[in-house]
Amino acid sequence: MQKSSAYQSVVKTFQRLSRFSHLSSIASWDMFTMMPPGGSAARGEALAEMSVLQHQILTDKKVGDLLAAAAGEDLNDVEQANLREMTRHYQQATLLPESLVEAKSLAGSRCEHAWRTQRPANDWQGFSANLKEVVKLSREEARLRAEAKGCTPYDALLDIFEPDMTSARLDVLFGDMKSWLPDLLANVVEKQAQRAFIPPQGPFPTATQRELGLEAMKMLGFDFNGGRLDVSAHPFCGGVPEDVRITTRYDEDELLSALFGVIHETGHARYEQNLPRAWAGQPVALARSTAIHESQSLFFEMQLGRSEAFLRHLLPAVHARFGSQAAFSEENFIAWNQRVKPGYIRVDADEVSYPAHVVLRYEIERALINGEIEVDDIPALWDEKMQAWLGLSTKDNYRNGCMQDIHWTDGGFGYFPSYTLGAMYAAQLFHAAKTALPGLQASIAQGDFSALFDWLRQNIWQHGSRFSTSQLITQATGEDLNIRYFREHLTSRYL
Amino acid sequence: MQKSSAYQSVVKTFQRLSRFSHLSSIASWDMFTMMPPGGSAARGEALAEMSVLQHQILTDKKVGDLLAAAAGEDLNDVEQANLREMTRHYQQATLLPESLVEAKSLAGSRCEHAWRTQRPANDWQGFSANLKEVVKLSREEARLRAEAKGCTPYDALLDIFEPDMTSARLDVLFGDMKSWLPDLLANVVEKQAQRAFIPPQGPFPTATQRELGLEAMKMLGFDFNGGRLDVSAHPFCGGVPEDVRITTRYDEDELLSALFGVIHETGHARYEQNLPRAWAGQPVALARSTAIHESQSLFFEMQLGRSEAFLRHLLPAVHARFGSQAAFSEENFIAWNQRVKPGYIRVDADEVSYPAHVVLRYEIERALINGEIEVDDIPALWDEKMQAWLGLSTKDNYRNGCMQDIHWTDGGFGYFPSYTLGAMYAAQLFHAAKTALPGLQASIAQGDFSALFDWLRQNIWQHGSRFSTSQLITQATGEDLNIRYFREHLTSRYL
Repeated sequence: MQKSSAYQSVVKTFQRLSRFSHLSSIASWDMFTMMPPGGSAARGEALAEMSVLQHQILTDKKVGDLLAAAAGEDLNDVEQANLREMTRHYQQATLLPESLVEAKSLAGSRCEHAWRTQRPANDWQGFSANLKEVVKLSREEARLRAEAKGCTPYDALLDIFEPDMTSARLDVLFGDMKSWLPDLLANVVEKQAQRAFIPPQGPFPTATQRELGLEAMKMLGFDFNGGRLDVSAHPFCGGVPEDVRITTRYDEDELLSALFGVIHETGHARYEQNLPRAWAGQPVALARSTAIHESQSLFFEMQLGRSEAFLRHLLPAVHARFGSQAAFSEENFIAWNQRVKPGYIRVDADEVSYPAHVVLRYEIERALINGEIEVDDIPALWDEKMQAWLGLSTKDNYRNGCMQDIHWTDGGFGYFPSYTLGAMYAAQLFHAAKTALPGLQASIAQGDFSALFDWLRQNIWQHGSRFSTSQLITQATGEDLNIRYFREHLTSRYL
Repeated sequence: MQKSSAYQSVVKTFQRLSRFSHLSSIASWDMFTMMPPGGSAARGEALAEMSVLQHQILTDKKVGDLLAAAAGEDLNDVEQANLREMTRHYQQATLLPESLVEAKSLAGSRCEHAWRTQRPANDWQGFSANLKEVVKLSREEARLRAEAKGCTPYDALLDIFEPDMTSARLDVLFGDMKSWLPDLLANVVEKQAQRAFIPPQGPFPTATQRELGLEAMKMLGFDFNGGRLDVSAHPFCGGVPEDVRITTRYDEDELLSALFGVIHETGHARYEQNLPRAWAGQPVALARSTAIHESQSLFFEMQLGRSEAFLRHLLPAVHARFGSQAAFSEENFIAWNQRVKPGYIRVDADEVSYPAHVVLRYEIERALINGEIEVDDIPALWDEKMQAWLGLSTKDNYRNGCMQDIHWTDGGFGYFPSYTLGAMYAAQLFHAAKTALPGLQASIAQGDFSALFDWLRQNIWQHGSRFSTSQLITQATGEDLNIRYFREHLTSRYL
C-alpha cells in the first residue's frame, strides 16, 4: 500500500539520520577501543560536526510541518507509535540552539578526555574546572527543556533517558527503598560474616579470560555475525543493532569482574540485536529507554547470571580454563558470586549495595542541575552520603569517589537513576518469566535458556519503542513498576 | 589579520567536509578490519548516505560563487594554493550528475562484491558482464570530464589521481622504459640464476610477525600516538592524518611479505602523519597525488627497505624473534629480499618486473576508456602482453590474469600508472637525498634515519598539495621527473 506522503517523507528523514548515527556510533566505539590518543582532537571535532548536522536535519522546520501533517494521516498502530517517537525526538531537539549542542559536545569531549588522566592522578582541581563548564551547559540545556515542558530542570533531563519518569516518582521509589535497604544490607553483611569465602587465586591471563567471556556470550545467544567483544577502559555496549559492539576490561588478578561485565553487556547486546529489524532506522525500532536497557543487562547479570542454577551451569567452563582450585568448588563459587561487600566503586558493587551508589548520585545531580549546589560542593556531599549509606569515607579520595564515573564528564545528567530502575524492572520481569515458564529453573540448570530468551524477545525486545515503558511493563508482567519484586528478590537471594 | 569573507566561508565548508570524511574514513577502516559480516548492508547504506551528503555540500552553487569571489581576494601563497585545490575538487564534483555518481557507486559495489567469489572461481563470463556496466558508466564519466577539460577521455580520468599527467607524457616515459627494461629484466634473471637462494622456513607465528612489524614501524618513525597497525584481507593505509591506520595480512608460512608490506604502508603513513597540520582540514593539506603517495611507500619499501644497509640493520630484529636459520644469514637475507622472479601477480612482484604489470594495465585501460577496445578483448590482450613482457601465458587463467586486481571492479580507471610513476619519483628522490646528505648510507647501516626523514619532511611531506607535482619534484631534486634515476637504481642494485 502506498503510504501518505507526509509520513513517508519524514520516515526518509529519520532513516537518513539513522545512517548518520551509524557512522557516529562506530566512530565513538572506535574512540574508546581503538583510537590512539593523538586522534582525539580531530575525532571530537568530527563527532561534534556530525551532532550539529543531525541537529540541523532534525530541527528543520519542514520536519515539524511534516510531523504535523502526518498526524492527520491514516496510519497503522506501529506508524502511529513511530510518529509519536519521531515527534518526541523532534521536540527534544528543537528546544536546543545549535550553538549549545556544539558547545556541549566540545566541552564534553574535552572533559572526558582530560578525565582519563585526571582520575588516576586524583586531580579534582583539574577535573572540576572542566566539569564546571559541562555543568553550566547542562544547566542551560535543562533550563530550556524545563521551560518547554513545564517541569523542574532536572526532570527535563530525566525525561530524555526515561520518558515519563519524574523526580517525584523517583522520590517515592527511592524513599521506599531507603526505608528497608540499609537494614537489609546490614543483615546480609552480618549473615555473610558468619561464613568463610575462598577468593579465587590468579593470575588469570587476559587471553584466557577473553575466551571464557566469548563462551559465556555464546551460551547467552550473542550473535557474533552481528557484533564483537573488545576492550575499553570503561565497559559499554555500542555500535548499531546490526553490529553491536560490547567491551570489557581485564585484570589478570581478578577473573569474575570481567566475566560478569561481559554477561551484563551481553544483556544490552541481545536487546539491541533483537530490536524489530522490520522498522530499522526508525525511532520506533530503538530501545524503549535507558532503564529498560539496564533491565536487560541486569536481567542477564543479576537475575540470571548470579542465580544458583546459572552459576552451576557456568562453572565447568571456568574449570576447563582455570582449573578447579578451592575457590571454584560449586558451593564457594556460588557464595563468592553472591557476596555482598559495600565498597567505593559503583561498577564493582554487588546488587544489594548498588542502589546506594545510584541514590547518592541521583540526589547530587538533581541538586546540581536544579542549582541548589555547585560543583565545588560535590566531594563533601559524596563523602557524607557514602558515610551514611555504606559507612565509607571518600574524603580526598576523589578518584574512588566523585571522579569514578564517566557519566557527568560529557553531561549525561539524568542517567544514573536508570540503573536502579533497571534493577527493579529486571526483578519484576524475572518474576513474571518464572510464573509464565514452569520448569524455568531446571532448564537454566541444564543450560537451556531458549524459553527464557523467547519470553524476553516476545515481551520486550521485539517491541522497540512501540509502547510506553509503563505499557510495556504492564503488558509483560500484568502491572506497572512495583518495587516489591526487587525487595523480594534481594531478600530471597541474600537472607 | 581578518581574512576576506568569501575565502573564509569556503574554508569553513571544506573544513566541514573534512570532518565528515574523518567519520567515513574511520568507518571504512572498521569495515575492512573489525566489522562482522552482518554489519555490511547497514554500513554500506551509511557510507553511501554520507557520500551523497558530501557531494551535495561540495556541489552547492554557493560554493562555486564563493570560490569565484575568493579568486578576486587578497590571498597569501598558501591560501592561493588552497583555493586552487578547492576549485579543483569543486569542478571535479560538479562535472558529474548525482545520478551517474550513484549508478557508478552501485555498479561498482555489485561488481566488486561478485568479484570476491568470481575470481577464485575463474569466472570471466560472470565477471565481464558486471564489468561491462562499470566500463559503460566510467566511459560516461570520462566523456563528461573530457569535454570540460578538452582532453581524451582516459586523460580526464588520469587527472583525478595525478593532476597534470597525460597519456602523451606517460607514453614517453613508459616508451623509454620499454626500450631497456625487458633486457635488464632478462639479464637480472640470468644473473640470479647463477646463485642459490635459501628460502626462509616457517612457521612464523602471527603474533611474533606482528611484533616484528611494530618494531620495523618504530625504526621507521611511525607515530603510534597517531596511528595503529591491524589486519585486513587487502593491506591499505587509511584513517586520517591525525590517526593513520595501516593494515597487513599474515601468512604463517611466509615472513617477509607481511614485513615488507608493513614497511610499505609505513611510508604511506609517515607522509600522512607529517602533512601540514597548520592547514588541517583544507585541500592544500592533503597528499599531493596518488603517485607521490606511492613514491613514499616505495621509498620506504624499495629504496630504503630493500637496500643492503637497511637489510643489515633489520636482520638482528629478525634473528631476535625467529632465530638464525640459514636463510637469515646476512648474505642470503639480502639476496632473498632482492630476488627478481617474474610472476603473474602484480602485488607479489619484485621492483624490476613490477613496471610490466603496470604498463600492460595502462595500455589496456586507456584503450578501453577511449573506446578502442571492448571488455571482451581484455583477456587476449592481457595474455599477449604478459607473454611479451614476462614470457608468461594467462590464457584461460583469468583469476591470475585480468581478474586479479580490485581497481577496475569499482571503476578506478587511471590509477595504475601511479604505481610506476611512484617508483620513478622514489628513485629520483632517493638519489637527491643521497646527494644532499653525505654519509647517508653509513647512517642507514647504523639505523639512524633521522636525516633522511627530515629531508623527506622538508621536501615532500610538509608541503601537502601546496605545489604541483612538477614543482614539488623540481624543488626537491633540481629537475622534473626523470626516468634515468629509476633505471640507474635498478641497474646498480640488480646488475
